[in-house]
Order: sequence, then structure tokens, then C-alpha cells
Amino acid sequence: MGGALDPVVAAGRNQVRRVLADLGAGSRLVVGASGGADSLALAAVTAFVASRESWSLHAVVVDHGLQAGSREVAAVAADQLATLGVDAEVVTVEVGTDGGPEAAARAARLAALADAAGRTDADAILLAHTLDDQAETVLLGLGRGSGPRSIAGMAERDGPWRRPFLTLRRADTEQICRASGLTWWVDPHNSDPAYRRSRIRTEVMPVLEDVLDGGVAGALARTADQVRADNDLLDDLAAQVGEPHDVRTLGSLPPALRSRVLRRAALAAGADPSALGAVHLAGLDRLVTSWRGQQRIELPGGVSAGRTGPSLTFTTTPVGQ
Amino acid sequence: MGGALDPVVAAGRNQVRRVLADLGAGSRLVVGASGGADSLALAAVTAFVASRESWSLHAVVVDHGLQAGSREVAAVAADQLATLGVDAEVVTVEVGTDGGPEAAARAARLAALADAAGRTDADAILLAHTLDDQAETVLLGLGRGSGPRSIAGMAERDGPWRRPFLTLRRADTEQICRASGLTWWVDPHNSDPAYRRSRIRTEVMPVLEDVLDGGVAGALARTADQVRADNDLLDDLAAQVGEPHDVRTLGSLPPALRSRVLRRAALAAGADPSALGAVHLAGLDRLVTSWRGQQRIELPGGVSAGRTGPSLTFTTTPVGQ
Repeated sequence: MGGALDPVVAAGRNQVRRVLADLGAGSRLVVGASGGADSLALAAVTAFVASRESWSLHAVVVDHGLQAGSREVAAVAADQLATLGVDAEVVTVEVGTDGGPEAAARAARLAALADAAGRTDADAILLAHTLDDQAETVLLGLGRGSGPRSIAGMAERDGPWRRPFLTLRRADTEQICRASGLTWWVDPHNSDPAYRRSRIRTEVMPVLEDVLDGGVAGALARTADQVRADNDLLDDLAAQVGEPHDVRTLGSLPPALRSRVLRRAALAAGADPSALGAVHLAGLDRLVTSWRGQQRIELPGGVSAGRTGPSLTFTTTPVGQ
Repeated sequence: MGGALDPVVAAGRNQVRRVLADLGAGSRLVVGASGGADSLALAAVTAFVASRESWSLHAVVVDHGLQAGSREVAAVAADQLATLGVDAEVVTVEVGTDGGPEAAARAARLAALADAAGRTDADAILLAHTLDDQAETVLLGLGRGSGPRSIAGMAERDGPWRRPFLTLRRADTEQICRASGLTWWVDPHNSDPAYRRSRIRTEVMPVLEDVLDGGVAGALARTADQVRADNDLLDDLAAQVGEPHDVRTLGSLPPALRSRVLRRAALAAGADPSALGAVHLAGLDRLVTSWRGQQRIELPGGVSAGRTGPSLTFTTTPVGQ
């Protein structure tokens, strides 16, 4: 090798050390890899840190089978990982349709990584999301309008899942690849206007950066960090409130707690967490705070909610009704 | 008159009734008016409700003196208000430069309204912000990246300040004017690309609406409502924590509370609330949670913060230093 260490490579390694600081020698890691700059860079810097820390590293290249030549792309990625000394396997997944193509591909990818982590008895699963991904996630969440939860973005640590690159820019990961002699694959989906995330990236972010004088990706990521911290605490406080169903107790809670206690009650009754939104919670809130004999409200997942005297009641709708 | 009541007029009146539900007969209101559709519509529906509720209504047309012909625009607005039977005065304000032209004009306008409320012993001051204004405010706040506080938007009720139209669209206010036979003035600043807010309106929102399949203004406003509720509760909880300066107590707080307790401490020491941002709070947090002998940090408003043994200490920098 020789030569001075690229500062971005050093930053990447430091991030991996920081976000995996709880792992001892002998720990086993799984890293997801697509062949893109972000995951190749993550595998490269993690391979270096893993050798110093005596961690074992297993890379999983997920072939979604969605594009012509995806098998070859995966094979090339596995070869690149091999040159880094990283043990790599290619896993071909079946992508469903639930929640649209992007959500379905993501679900299949995460399932494959979780499966590999189970097979290899791994302590952590590394994902290569960058600050740019985080900013795009926040903007996509804003469009859903489901409040703090939808703009809280992704956490650096979430159980076994770790995202060491959340403070790095996408361009930093390309620089790490260059400095490491790695050639990355550019996914044509990343600029395909059929995908909402790529339109956020190519159309919305440049306009926002221009109008707000730059720094928008970092600002969105900082906001997400704080919203996530707020949300974590308020979720904890709501859990401590327990499960009151009498409207007097519910009505006396501050709105920020009441909305979360109502959400927990709806989920406990079987409502679908991915589809339960601000509109449903507002309806539940009106049952508590503005009762004038209104009808039961329907929640996603075949659950309805209404009032029975002074109590909020949930009913599961029989399948097929 | 005669004919069916326009549903948007009815909605506007209901909003005024709801947001002013705490005011009894004989209450005195001040409404800010610019001659634009939003404030003319607000004055019109409020005049109707005020006559039913026995409130007195005083309109203040603020002439910012920033555009040629602004005096004539103000005079026309006052005439329109007179046709509604609303007592109106024109107040000419001097706009400073603090915080940029938009912030300075806003500060001068609010000061003039507060002054009129004082002179008339008013119980409430009505502002005509719409859901579109709220959405733009959230996007502008996102660009600041100062976390939940910067995206919490505007409250419907904030002491004497009331915003009955926060759930109405800008187009609704034009419809109210049309239905009321009022001609509104279109402020050329609203589409002037020299103003950040007008670029958010004309460039960012249309792209976001297109990419996210519509409903973005409503989604942003809903998110702001929930973030504001969260922020209100967390601010209350932080106030209950008091003012610990020892790092052990501070370090044991959940991050969402610690950031707010640190913010309160910085403000109590004299830091400038309008300039104190996420970057400063992160620096304060590192003094508490990652102490490795780092230097004192400078906060806006001539305040510095550092560690003295196990305590966080704030020092006011003498003026001129």
C-alpha cells in the first residue's frame, strides 16, 4: 500500500470503530453489499478495522433479480470483496410486491441479511446508509405526514443493525472506493424517475439546496437525529402510562403522550403498524376528547374503534367481512 | 346578500369560532390586514362572527413602506375593510435589517399589532396564516436544521396570538374573498425569487407535490402539529428538571431532555435564542458526555461554556472583547 492515509478512509474507519465500540474481540459481523460505492466502501473499511479488532466479517451480496445482468453485478461485487480478503456469498432473493417495489426489495434484502446473521451467529449486521440516504428518508417521510415517527429517519444503532456511515456523504464513499482501488457499480435505479427516492435525490434535493443556500442534507439529518431522540423518550413515557382505555384518564394526558398511548392501544388490538397513520390517530383522539356520538372508526388491519360508555373499545373485524 | 352560504365561508367562520371559543361577549379583537386575500378573508369572516358574538373588531393595516405604492395599497385595504363594517387604521412601520428582510418586516408587523392590541386593550390578535404558510414555514425550518423546534411551525393559539386559518388553504381565502365581493391585492413579493419563502412556494412545493403524489402541504402541517405537541411536552419536562449544572446529573438525563436542559441553561446565561442552534447544543452535550479536556465553546450572544471540574460553567464575554 504505502502513501498517506486518505482522510475520508480514516473517517470511515473511525465511524466503524465508534458505532461498533460495544463489540469485543471474536465478534462476528455481517455486512450487506450491493456492489455500489457505499457498501463496497463500508466493507473495505470494516475489513481493515475487523482485522485489528479480531472480528470476523462475512459479506452478503444480495441479488434482487430485478434487473438484467444482476447476477453478474453480484458476482463482480463478490470478486471485489474477495480482493479485500472479505469472505462473501451471493444470496438471490425473491422480491414480493407489498408496499411497492422499493419497500418490497428492501424487505427481501433485510430478510436475507437477518438470515445470514442467524446462520453465522453474527453479533451485528452492518448497513451502508449515508447521510444522503438519511436526508432522502426524511423527505420521503415528510410526504407521508405521519408525524415525528415518519421523519425520525434511521438510527445508527438499532439492535443488531448498525449504520456506521450515517455521518458520511455518498461522495465520501466513492472517495473511499477510489482510495482503496475498488470499482463500484452504479445502479441505474438510483436515477430512474420511476422510483420516488431517485426523484427526491435528483429533482427535490438540488432545488432545496439551491433555495436554502446549501447544507440541506446535513440539516435534515440533524433534525432526524433530534426528532428520533424525542420520539424515543416519548415512546418510553407512553409505555410507562400503560394501557388505560377510560376516556377520563386518556383525556387528561398531554396530547403528545395521548397520541402514543392511543397508537399502542390500536397496535395491541391488531392494527397494522405500517399503515396506521396520523389520520387514524386523530380519529381515535376525537373519540376521546370530542365525543358527540360519532360512528366507530376503521383502522388498517381490520380493527375498528369506538366508545362504549366511558371506555374506548377496539373490535377485530372477522376476515372476509 | 341572499343565496346559499359558500361552504368555504362557513368553514372559515367555524374556524374563527373554534379558535376563539374562550372569548366571551364584549371581547376586543385586533386583526392584522395587508390587503392580501388571506387577511381580507379573515377580517370578513371574523366581522360576521364578531357581530354574532358581541366582540369588537379593530383591523390594523400595516404599511411596511418597502414597495412603491404601499401607502395606496394600505388605503385600499382600509377601504375594503370599511365596506365590511370593520373599524380599520393604517400604521406605517419602520423595517429594520435584523435577520434579513423577511424577518425584519415580520418583526415590525408583529410589533405594530402588539402595540395596537395594547392601545385598544385587546384580548386576542388574529393572524391570517394558512396551511400553505405553515408548510412553507416547516420547509424553511428544515433548512435551518435546528431540530424539532425549527419544524414545529406556528401554533393556532399562542397567548393572545390566534391563527384561525391554519387549516385553510390559501386558495380557500381567495374563494372567501370572491364570495364576499372583496378584491384582494397580490403582493409581488410573494413570487419574487429574491425571497426564500417565495422560492419555497413557487419552486420547491410544486416539485415536492409532484414527486410525492400530492398532499404535501397537508402532510407538512400535520407533522408540524405533532412535532409541536411533542416539543411542548418535552419543554415542560425539561423545565421540571430544573437547572442542574453538574455533569453527572446532566449525563444521566435522556438525550431529548438533556438537550433542552442545556438549551435552558445557555439561555439563562444570556445566549441569543434566535441564533442558538443544534451545533451549539451538540458542543454543550460533548462537554457533558465526552469530556476530554476540550476548549470552552462560544455561544451566540457573547456567552461561552466550559467545564470547571464536574460542573458545566457559563461565562458572559464582556462587550467589546
